[in-house]
Amino acid sequence: MESHNTKYSNPTDEDYNINQDQAIVTRRIQRLSLHLHPISVPPVFSDNLQLLTCTGRAKINVNAENLSEYMRGKHRDIQERVYEYFNARPDLQTPLEITKDAHRELCMRQLMGLVREAGIRPFKYVVEDPAKYFAILEAVGSVDMSLGIKMGVQYSLWGGSVLNLGTKKHKDKYFEGIDNMEYPGCFAMTELHHGSNVQGLQTVATFDPFRDEFIIDTPNDGAIKWWIGNAAVHGKFATVFAKLMLPTHDTKGVSDMGVHAFIVPIRDMKTHEALPGIEIHDCGHKVGLNGVDNGALKFRSVRIPRDNLLNRFGGVSRDGKYTSSLPSINKRFAATLGELVGGRVGLAYSSVGVLKIAVTIAVRYSLLRQQFGPPKQPEISILDYQSQQHKLMPMLASTYAFHFATSHLVEKYSEMKRSHDEELVGDVHTLSAGLKAYVTSYTAKSLSTCREACGGHGYAAVNRFGSLRNDHDIFQTFEGDNTVLLQQVAAYLLKQYKEKFQGGTLTVTWNYLRESMNTYLSQPNPVTSRWEGEDHLRNPNFQLDAFRYRTSRLLQSVAVRLRKHSKTLGSFGAWNRCLNHLLTLAESHIESVILAKFIEAVRSCPDASSQAALKLVCDLYALDRIWNDIGTYRNVDYVAPNKAKAIHKLSEYLSFQVKNIARELVDGFELPDHVTRAPIGTQVAKEAYSQYTQYAGF
Amino acid sequence: MESHNTKYSNPTDEDYNINQDQAIVTRRIQRLSLHLHPISVPPVFSDNLQLLTCTGRAKINVNAENLSEYMRGKHRDIQERVYEYFNARPDLQTPLEITKDAHRELCMRQLMGLVREAGIRPFKYVVEDPAKYFAILEAVGSVDMSLGIKMGVQYSLWGGSVLNLGTKKHKDKYFEGIDNMEYPGCFAMTELHHGSNVQGLQTVATFDPFRDEFIIDTPNDGAIKWWIGNAAVHGKFATVFAKLMLPTHDTKGVSDMGVHAFIVPIRDMKTHEALPGIEIHDCGHKVGLNGVDNGALKFRSVRIPRDNLLNRFGGVSRDGKYTSSLPSINKRFAATLGELVGGRVGLAYSSVGVLKIAVTIAVRYSLLRQQFGPPKQPEISILDYQSQQHKLMPMLASTYAFHFATSHLVEKYSEMKRSHDEELVGDVHTLSAGLKAYVTSYTAKSLSTCREACGGHGYAAVNRFGSLRNDHDIFQTFEGDNTVLLQQVAAYLLKQYKEKFQGGTLTVTWNYLRESMNTYLSQPNPVTSRWEGEDHLRNPNFQLDAFRYRTSRLLQSVAVRLRKHSKTLGSFGAWNRCLNHLLTLAESHIESVILAKFIEAVRSCPDASSQAALKLVCDLYALDRIWNDIGTYRNVDYVAPNKAKAIHKLSEYLSFQVKNIARELVDGFELPDHVTRAPIGTQVAKEAYSQYTQYAGF
Repeated sequence: MESHNTKYSNPTDEDYNINQDQAIVTRRIQRLSLHLHPISVPPVFSDNLQLLTCTGRAKINVNAENLSEYMRGKHRDIQERVYEYFNARPDLQTPLEITKDAHRELCMRQLMGLVREAGIRPFKYVVEDPAKYFAILEAVGSVDMSLGIKMGVQYSLWGGSVLNLGTKKHKDKYFEGIDNMEYPGCFAMTELHHGSNVQGLQTVATFDPFRDEFIIDTPNDGAIKWWIGNAAVHGKFATVFAKLMLPTHDTKGVSDMGVHAFIVPIRDMKTHEALPGIEIHDCGHKVGLNGVDNGALKFRSVRIPRDNLLNRFGGVSRDGKYTSSLPSINKRFAATLGELVGGRVGLAYSSVGVLKIAVTIAVRYSLLRQQFGPPKQPEISILDYQSQQHKLMPMLASTYAFHFATSHLVEKYSEMKRSHDEELVGDVHTLSAGLKAYVTSYTAKSLSTCREACGGHGYAAVNRFGSLRNDHDIFQTFEGDNTVLLQQVAAYLLKQYKEKFQGGTLTVTWNYLRESMNTYLSQPNPVTSRWEGEDHLRNPNFQLDAFRYRTSRLLQSVAVRLRKHSKTLGSFGAWNRCLNHLLTLAESHIESVILAKFIEAVRSCPDASSQAALKLVCDLYALDRIWNDIGTYRNVDYVAPNKAKAIHKLSEYLSFQVKNIARELVDGFELPDHVTRAPIGTQVAKEAYSQYTQYAGF
Repeated sequence: MESHNTKYSNPTDEDYNINQDQAIVTRRIQRLSLHLHPISVPPVFSDNLQLLTCTGRAKINVNAENLSEYMRGKHRDIQERVYEYFNARPDLQTPLEITKDAHRELCMRQLMGLVREAGIRPFKYVVEDPAKYFAILEAVGSVDMSLGIKMGVQYSLWGGSVLNLGTKKHKDKYFEGIDNMEYPGCFAMTELHHGSNVQGLQTVATFDPFRDEFIIDTPNDGAIKWWIGNAAVHGKFATVFAKLMLPTHDTKGVSDMGVHAFIVPIRDMKTHEALPGIEIHDCGHKVGLNGVDNGALKFRSVRIPRDNLLNRFGGVSRDGKYTSSLPSINKRFAATLGELVGGRVGLAYSSVGVLKIAVTIAVRYSLLRQQFGPPKQPEISILDYQSQQHKLMPMLASTYAFHFATSHLVEKYSEMKRSHDEELVGDVHTLSAGLKAYVTSYTAKSLSTCREACGGHGYAAVNRFGSLRNDHDIFQTFEGDNTVLLQQVAAYLLKQYKEKFQGGTLTVTWNYLRESMNTYLSQPNPVTSRWEGEDHLRNPNFQLDAFRYRTSRLLQSVAVRLRKHSKTLGSFGAWNRCLNHLLTLAESHIESVILAKFIEAVRSCPDASSQAALKLVCDLYALDRIWNDIGTYRNVDYVAPNKAKAIHKLSEYLSFQVKNIARELVDGFELPDHVTRAPIGTQVAKEAYSQYTQYAGF
């Protein structure tokens, strides 16, 4: 059992030291409290607790090799094949200046090279080994994010819709062509007027029983399919989402069966001309990702065979009868969209890949760059400034945290694809929505911070922050707008909350809610709210408890508010009235899931020095997040004022400690210079400036 | 005198209502407290206090015309001339896709057109009427920010250095050529290894008494002048900052007189070839502003006449003697850099211009865009969602706040240029540093938020967020890195703090510190910390007090910490140990200055409905900022838990109210469609989507 009766003073800064007498009193109360509320440390922590909490003051000696080995995924080999293929082909590298049209052609050549020359065939892994697929996606994205997205459109979206929403006949007919890029295709869901609200799509597919065909129509300009990747230039096919209309014998004449997916050939296989009735335009320049040819599609009475309905969840018989194993439109809609979560998993995972590149460049440059210094002494590295540590070290810690969380997500997703376990489906759906939203928002902000932290040289296009930010920016929007996805997380939490009260069981990820609903909702413990020793603050139990306490409290209070407001505003109005609260709840939950995974990863690390480094980084992640929301904790007296100060001081101190091993920590990501590609971020620091002057022509 | 004994319940949401009994008790205590500590309302507020606090529940009727008239600067006419000139010249408009080299040529043509065709000659206003100069700069920046920056390089930096650091002989020789663009020039301060640390520059200018010349040299590659605007292609001259070296008769042989500025011709006036000894290279692609030709300059024994030293603050006589009216290197350095604050004023002002464009586009689109809605009812506008209001309404409020603050800064700067009053110089220096840092950081973040809030259509390049962000990004870095500038603000505050304790006088902007140091540093009033009525929270006295209390407290505590740490770490080490604290202090001060100016602007507004609208917006700015740092306020019990909740609720409610007049508020910026130029942000909403489909070719 851990003892909390030791350190009170923050060893780095004694400004707020409580006076000696008070310290003695508090210590006495603490001892007593241990008798009253014995703290049970779960067995997972007790074995190496010493190591986990007492890393001491000295700089940790990190063996970057061992750390990398622990961090490295199972599919490093195929990532290296990707890196090496493109490193050996300078003609396939994207220059800093390239027109939109040339970029699109280059991007297509890159993808063809990968598939046909390097022999990397991602499609089979989409189903067989998703972890390997995501590893390829991450590596390819670091070559040029346009390539990553174009590959994702082809295999996750167009290919994935055929595999996951279609049946054997579709797989038999299309697999080979999708795999070998003979059938480049699109995923035509979004319309000009509808993105998030997929059920509001207006494109229609009317069944014509006489010719056994569907007729696809764009009823108005708001229903033009918009932003469709691969549509402007290269696509031959599109999976088109449209309302299925079946003829009826009543006065209405037609019945809306809800949104379904249809394979629609859009260009002639030989001439590549747009097929009759299909109007295709270019959506034009984007903020980034200009290597992807996003287009707009308008349909005028386009006929496709009945077989082109992707009929896994609902089909139409020869005589126009609807058949489905699922009972309602809503269930079918949920099943259809549920098959698309792979895209979110991929984005969350790739977003961490982008963050790793940016953090690596920013940290290496901040170690190299010197500016100002003590009087008559050499200038110091800008990473020696507390402000720069504050900008970059919690970000580095978060990168590690996200690495473990998204690796976990990929595992769960792979498991779900194998088992089709229902509980797992719900879990993965919510976890992928939450992590995609949280991670991509964080990465987007961090890319701006990195640019700014690297000053003028961060503004040189060659140093990558601009293109990384412009390309990554839309990660926050596509495959589900982040604000909408977080609401799905909140809704799922509320569902679990209700089930708990109805005596139901909770799935694994939400297990902590069971306990928390009973224990955390009482008033915070007035004794522990005053503990401010380093051992306590770095105890994973305290950290997890703090994260979960907040989530539970937010959940409980929003449930009460929703119930109250529903009476006057209806459920839609009540939801909107509580929307900020719900978003905070969702973020809070995701942060706690990330922390839990990080703590597990620290515990499982077999190498002692790597473990100590990871523990340090994990503590920084935890305390930085608690400090960021200290108002909430203070407001309910979960932490007393002096404890709040102690948390702040310790997180500043941990930033300083992490700075001391920052070089090794970014080396742990194993990103070679030909992947980071920023002169200011070279691994061998002394080459950085000279690469840079040579680049300018000196 | 205002009465605080009315509303307790938040009228929009009663979740946290304290119970009735407690309310009565609290009210009684409040009444008592008024006897004990009568609140003195300064006369400026008492006249129209009713209006200022009781705007009521109904939607305010805003007359956009009257609001615009109040917001409009004195130099709207010249801005309209700029807009109209470029609107009439589509050949001078920057296309979405353009190569770096073509963009630079276009940008030069734009500038030449402005000066030689439109007859707008900004240079004379640099000195005569800075407000007019900044108005031109803002307008020109909205055409293409590259043009704004290129104009700034020519007139503020190159031209400004000649006027402000030189003497009559320089003005006589160069004014005309700079004004009419026959002498395009550069401002060569930054080196590869030194940006912020100007005193660390390594370029040398050695006086040769035999030939009466200076010899300019780049002693090593780290001293190459880097990022120099106008250098890569167009510049004929450069103001080069270098250490002045004078020969001595001692063993050292030479004496370093510190950094001085020299006019160095860099290209032949006829052939445009680089002059002997001058190596010029292109710094290449940047994240944005690719219309500006930033280059790198390396000097090898480049000789210039003695007259080319800009000798306002220090000169060299024919026989190599140094002469100056200022006593030390540090004083001369401060005077030299002090003349360059105009650049910061311009950036802060232009940054607000960028923010206005972005907010206008985002608000108009959010009103137009509909997604989801209550069951079986039409979809609602996305600005009807609380989350969207949370993203955009405090931003809209901040735009108004910054408008008044930067207008005030321009006035003060103009006054300083007229009077050369010493106190004013210090004030303007600090205010320009602080506002430049605070406003540009805020705008940079907001541009990302706007893109994200506008979803997929926000990612279309034509809708401007990408280029605005990429171009504006470097505003955070050039003319003083924001992190460095905030430290100058903190240092000035500490200086004032010390002077106050030494019985000195404080300058106008800092006046509040005098009072606050005496009154605010006691414990917060336990009675007022519980007041949570809307009248109280919307009282400017409460708001200003809260902002200033925080600043004073931060100032007091950092002064104590600095004193303590100096003993062990020295002053440089102590400063670094407290750096995050110092940056928070600086931001807190700037926020309070902005609020004070906003409150004044509300008070001075002659039109009642505009005043009511501005008051609403000002309250949102104030309460949103207090809520953002609620942890600090809670930690010292400046606000009690229920008051914290009331602040949160009221700021959510104010966001809702501001949403109701958001259209009128953005109309108040008077930005015509040919200036905003985003199809999704057109003034006539119904045209937005059709402009957009037409743009794609439908």
